[in-house]
Amino acid sequence: MAKPLPVSPLAPVDPKPPLPVSGVRCAAAATGIRYQGRPDLLFVELAAETTVAGVLTRSAAPGHPVTWCRRALASGTARALIVNAGNANVCRGEEGDEAVKREVTAAMRLVGCAADDVFVASTGVIGERLPVEKIEAALPDLAASLAHDEAAMREAARAIMTTDTFAKWSSRQVTLGDRTVTITGIAKGSGMVAPDMATMLAFVFTDAAIPAPALQVLLNRASDRSFNATTVDGDTSTSDTLLLFATAEAANAPPENADDPALAGFARALDEVTIDLAQQVVRDGEGARKFIEIRVAGAADDPAARRIGLTVANSPLVKTAIAGADANWGRIVMAVGKAGEVIELDRLGIGFGGHWVARNGAAVPDLDEAPVTAHLEGAEIAIDITVGGGPGRAVVWTCDLTHGYIDINADYRS
Amino acid sequence: MAKPLPVSPLAPVDPKPPLPVSGVRCAAAATGIRYQGRPDLLFVELAAETTVAGVLTRSAAPGHPVTWCRRALASGTARALIVNAGNANVCRGEEGDEAVKREVTAAMRLVGCAADDVFVASTGVIGERLPVEKIEAALPDLAASLAHDEAAMREAARAIMTTDTFAKWSSRQVTLGDRTVTITGIAKGSGMVAPDMATMLAFVFTDAAIPAPALQVLLNRASDRSFNATTVDGDTSTSDTLLLFATAEAANAPPENADDPALAGFARALDEVTIDLAQQVVRDGEGARKFIEIRVAGAADDPAARRIGLTVANSPLVKTAIAGADANWGRIVMAVGKAGEVIELDRLGIGFGGHWVARNGAAVPDLDEAPVTAHLEGAEIAIDITVGGGPGRAVVWTCDLTHGYIDINADYRS
Repeated sequence: MAKPLPVSPLAPVDPKPPLPVSGVRCAAAATGIRYQGRPDLLFVELAAETTVAGVLTRSAAPGHPVTWCRRALASGTARALIVNAGNANVCRGEEGDEAVKREVTAAMRLVGCAADDVFVASTGVIGERLPVEKIEAALPDLAASLAHDEAAMREAARAIMTTDTFAKWSSRQVTLGDRTVTITGIAKGSGMVAPDMATMLAFVFTDAAIPAPALQVLLNRASDRSFNATTVDGDTSTSDTLLLFATAEAANAPPENADDPALAGFARALDEVTIDLAQQVVRDGEGARKFIEIRVAGAADDPAARRIGLTVANSPLVKTAIAGADANWGRIVMAVGKAGEVIELDRLGIGFGGHWVARNGAAVPDLDEAPVTAHLEGAEIAIDITVGGGPGRAVVWTCDLTHGYIDINADYRS
Repeated sequence: MAKPLPVSPLAPVDPKPPLPVSGVRCAAAATGIRYQGRPDLLFVELAAETTVAGVLTRSAAPGHPVTWCRRALASGTARALIVNAGNANVCRGEEGDEAVKREVTAAMRLVGCAADDVFVASTGVIGERLPVEKIEAALPDLAASLAHDEAAMREAARAIMTTDTFAKWSSRQVTLGDRTVTITGIAKGSGMVAPDMATMLAFVFTDAAIPAPALQVLLNRASDRSFNATTVDGDTSTSDTLLLFATAEAANAPPENADDPALAGFARALDEVTIDLAQQVVRDGEGARKFIEIRVAGAADDPAARRIGLTVANSPLVKTAIAGADANWGRIVMAVGKAGEVIELDRLGIGFGGHWVARNGAAVPDLDEAPVTAHLEGAEIAIDITVGGGPGRAVVWTCDLTHGYIDINADYRS
């Protein structure tokens, strides 16, 4: 059993409360699947017209819930979501699929919906049997205690945590047509957070009316700018799941497609929510003491810049140097060099906190290291990397690699 | 300055001494480039007919010595090698190239050879000026004290170390035609050891007569089976250099090409030397407490198996679980899943030390964990992974990720 961990020093201070979303009612319970004395099961009921979009792990060994969600997404509609923490329901063969079916069947009966309107996610240990009977036993009470308020949303964010040290949520309100719509997301992260689906679990709810195909495009774009621009340890989970539910309760005029000008504000707000959640996940990276923003410019194109940024973000040598407040820019050169992208070495520049330590492929002469060191001793680190004269730019986020990461991960399962 | 580190617990016990190689004379000195009180400069003189082959880092930001070696390799001949530890001579612009030229010029004068017969390698901190004048000042004395014995070879291995905790060498003797030839290699490794050139520096010497083109093919193959099958932290250096020198002093009949049947024994011995060196590098991985062999079977082909193996070997979650002697095979599932290769999930099997914990895509029922745990508490870990029914197989080596890695790398430069 994981020991209780102190709250990350990078956690948001006094965050704004999560806003309830019309058409979203939820409840959580402590079922003792793995953890004791804390909620570990979340049930969400969604209004009748809810559409859904999803981005799922690209793992070749996906969990049983992921396989289910991939199929259920085809319908584009949703009425219920079940999430448990403590057991990921991965690598259990037919038994794992059967467990998902039992969850789905229970939700169908409680909500009165089709099977593919039920979404399921599980996070936690891989390879152990999901005690689905505990979930089945708890669901009726949860369905009877659903609530549409801030407290329920906070509890939802708490119920999906594993080694997270704080609950993560983010809300925005924005105008869509002549209506004000709300977007609220919750997420859980920590280890196994990587590009190509950067958080284990994130669920975003809105009361906007948006057809599923447009919703999917919006989610792909937002995911690309947020979760896929972050990394904690370069590992991708079997269970990474990002779902966006739109309940249509705001009764705005539905947009034609994702590029409908009416959606511009909504898309921006969705970006803000997903970036906020992704950054919170990094801020709660296992053992993290420093939040690192890496800004790459001058690459051949944006994807090349992103790949360079993520290679730097994933480098254990860079991450430990930052942990030690060491302006060891050579390690950044090393990481840039191994990214597999063409760079202009004689234009390479590296800066910390706005202070350039290398320019034009060489160390800045007679550098005053004092402001660089002062910056690196802080908790919010900015690294600028220029790799040439190209137009490609990207921003990625990561955290440092510390003793805390080892402590947590050498002893998580047992 | 790095603090002195205790010798890795995985270091070879009582290794056989390095065998001198005919036509190879060397000497080392302490020049204080960075370290105090230990040799940090190696000079090697090679016999007149020496051929050379090399494998250099694929980094897009290679060090100045790497750029030089890439050009010098074109001639296929070699007479001298200069290696320094403590400063990598990377990212110094024209000054860095100029420093290499000064080293080459000094060696040319001492040995009486062409510029492209001189090979140069540097390892250590990136971005700081190489004090080439210290090298120039030391070389004449080194050239006057060259020796062809075991002690000189040991000292050579010691002179190229950075954060290594023990000197690495390996020797074999084998018949080539009607002659006995010797192969002796030295290497240095530790952090920044990764696939696609797995050690920072390795130099292999033989007295065999082998034309440069054949030598290059032999080295490519050996490198593929050894250094490119290992990883310590997934980071690739700017300076990775593997050179193979053949002095021709054994006066064997030169083989026609790399596939000449006469070379079979030599090729096997070269594999043994490079695998031994690569494994020693892993055994000296920064903070390593456990040596891990990962055997992948059932992949689509050998390269796919290798990519899966290296993805597992590079996973910080897997490496920390092994550090904690935790049979957390779910993390291996996770790493296999993210490797980007097609697998047959319902045939997935995972074993530790010959004990299968998962078979056919699911946990082994009623597993007796005791022998698994006993194996994982040892220092030599074997992981078997079956990913399907294909013919692809690979073996890769890595070490665990421990607090020692953080200690060393959060404080290396300063």
